[in-house]
Amino acid sequence: MFNQVTIIGCGLIGSSILRCLKKNGSIKKLISFDNDRAVNDVIKKENLSHEIASSPSEAVKNSDLVLISTPLSSFESVINSIKDNLKSGSILTDTCSVKKGINEIAKKIISKNTIWIPGHPVAGTENSGPRAGFADLFRDRWTIITPDENIKDSDIKKITFFWESMGSKVKIMPADDHDKILSLTSHLPHVIAYNIVKTAMGDDEKTKNDIIRYSAGGLRDFTRIAASDPGMWKDIFIDNSSLIIEAIDKFSKNLNDFKNAIKEKDSKKLLEIFQKSKEFRKSIIKARQDTDKPDFGRK
Amino acid sequence: MFNQVTIIGCGLIGSSILRCLKKNGSIKKLISFDNDRAVNDVIKKENLSHEIASSPSEAVKNSDLVLISTPLSSFESVINSIKDNLKSGSILTDTCSVKKGINEIAKKIISKNTIWIPGHPVAGTENSGPRAGFADLFRDRWTIITPDENIKDSDIKKITFFWESMGSKVKIMPADDHDKILSLTSHLPHVIAYNIVKTAMGDDEKTKNDIIRYSAGGLRDFTRIAASDPGMWKDIFIDNSSLIIEAIDKFSKNLNDFKNAIKEKDSKKLLEIFQKSKEFRKSIIKARQDTDKPDFGRK
Repeated sequence: MFNQVTIIGCGLIGSSILRCLKKNGSIKKLISFDNDRAVNDVIKKENLSHEIASSPSEAVKNSDLVLISTPLSSFESVINSIKDNLKSGSILTDTCSVKKGINEIAKKIISKNTIWIPGHPVAGTENSGPRAGFADLFRDRWTIITPDENIKDSDIKKITFFWESMGSKVKIMPADDHDKILSLTSHLPHVIAYNIVKTAMGDDEKTKNDIIRYSAGGLRDFTRIAASDPGMWKDIFIDNSSLIIEAIDKFSKNLNDFKNAIKEKDSKKLLEIFQKSKEFRKSIIKARQDTDKPDFGRK
Repeated sequence: MFNQVTIIGCGLIGSSILRCLKKNGSIKKLISFDNDRAVNDVIKKENLSHEIASSPSEAVKNSDLVLISTPLSSFESVINSIKDNLKSGSILTDTCSVKKGINEIAKKIISKNTIWIPGHPVAGTENSGPRAGFADLFRDRWTIITPDENIKDSDIKKITFFWESMGSKVKIMPADDHDKILSLTSHLPHVIAYNIVKTAMGDDEKTKNDIIRYSAGGLRDFTRIAASDPGMWKDIFIDNSSLIIEAIDKFSKNLNDFKNAIKEKDSKKLLEIFQKSKEFRKSIIKARQDTDKPDFGRK
């Protein structure tokens, strides 16, 4: 695998990668950088990297793989600050949730001696920061990589093996496809979760307490992902705005049809939709992307 | 408490009540009825009631409490079939998720010698049927009862104690308030869950597989409640249609504002919404209506 790996940005994702690589011992030298001192304190205390660098440009020197797991909106400035220090022939990757925009930025800035292979582990929890990370975060989850056509198979294999060593499964696809699929499986659900929580909360304090009390009827499921890192999601919504707006429009059309079915008491149509959803849930469990414990095993 | 209790309808809710009452031994004689032979087989095999009646009218004879936990759409026919056999002075209750409609039906049919106190335990899982039930289903959850103003305090106390003996907390409110609050905490989330699953699934088999594979990015959370009992939800949507349509309209308005914020890249507005959602989630966890384990403790 790689002799020396640099992780820039050590929040939930970056720290989980460090934890996993430290645990499996596959990397001789792990270098980390984060611009937040409190984050570095956690990395140091928990001994998650061999070296905490003083700057991004110092961090990348001589590394065979550099992985950026900062928020989307910091990506361009990080790339600018490391571009002159990247080792010739090294691989540069990332973990951002939207691929098209950063792909264009990286290709514009990075020299041809660096092999740029964008990546996105479809994994996470509602918590953020280095304390929320854990070594098993990527186990059984998918990582999508979106290399350009000119990237050599041997380099794709290296990054594939890197993710597989952390228990992840790897899928290669074009950046456009990634952004389209994720607009449906991740971005739209987050849009909807924020909106349903906003709608249910209302503006009245008395109602709000009742809503909290009786949230076990369904609402609480939505609040989990609506508690995700605000800064990260602001970046994603703005970066993938056109596909997300397309997904919202599709959703709104379906919602309107559904509203009409309720209005017209169209049992047949409602039952058809419910039955398909039930089957879809079964497919997700079969694909091991969710637990089959009722109520997620809540206690 | 009550000497003899009858449970009509032994699915997830009815069988959980039987399990709990059998376990805590508070009722001398538990009688059950279900019109599905397979359900009765489970009740018999697991020894969940003292007697399985052959008809609803037989089941209610001499019982001090009769609880109906059938689907909403069966409520009227059940009431009609038991009305002449209810013991004078006995309490009749139910577990339906919508209260206004059944309240009107019951008051029209039941004689004045029966004390009608509608109820709704806000508890459940995505699974249905008697095998899905468990004794702890109501622990720490709220049961809402919606008695008319003329119901005596001593009778309200009896039904309150009945639910409390199963670990539930009890709240009294008017039927209209119940239906309004539940339209937001339970009915709207289910509408939205069905619609987001429908939107994400699309019509194309290839896309569908990708959507399943990458569902851990958020979508899977919505599929749990979209896998709930189709027949039950069809009834709820039709029975509480006007309040649910009102909730859908509110949601659509918020969604449209959100879409505009994305279009205009209005970071400030987005961050404000996210921050409020995060705080709301914390309140739900503080009120012990959800787990604080990241990712619901999925493994």
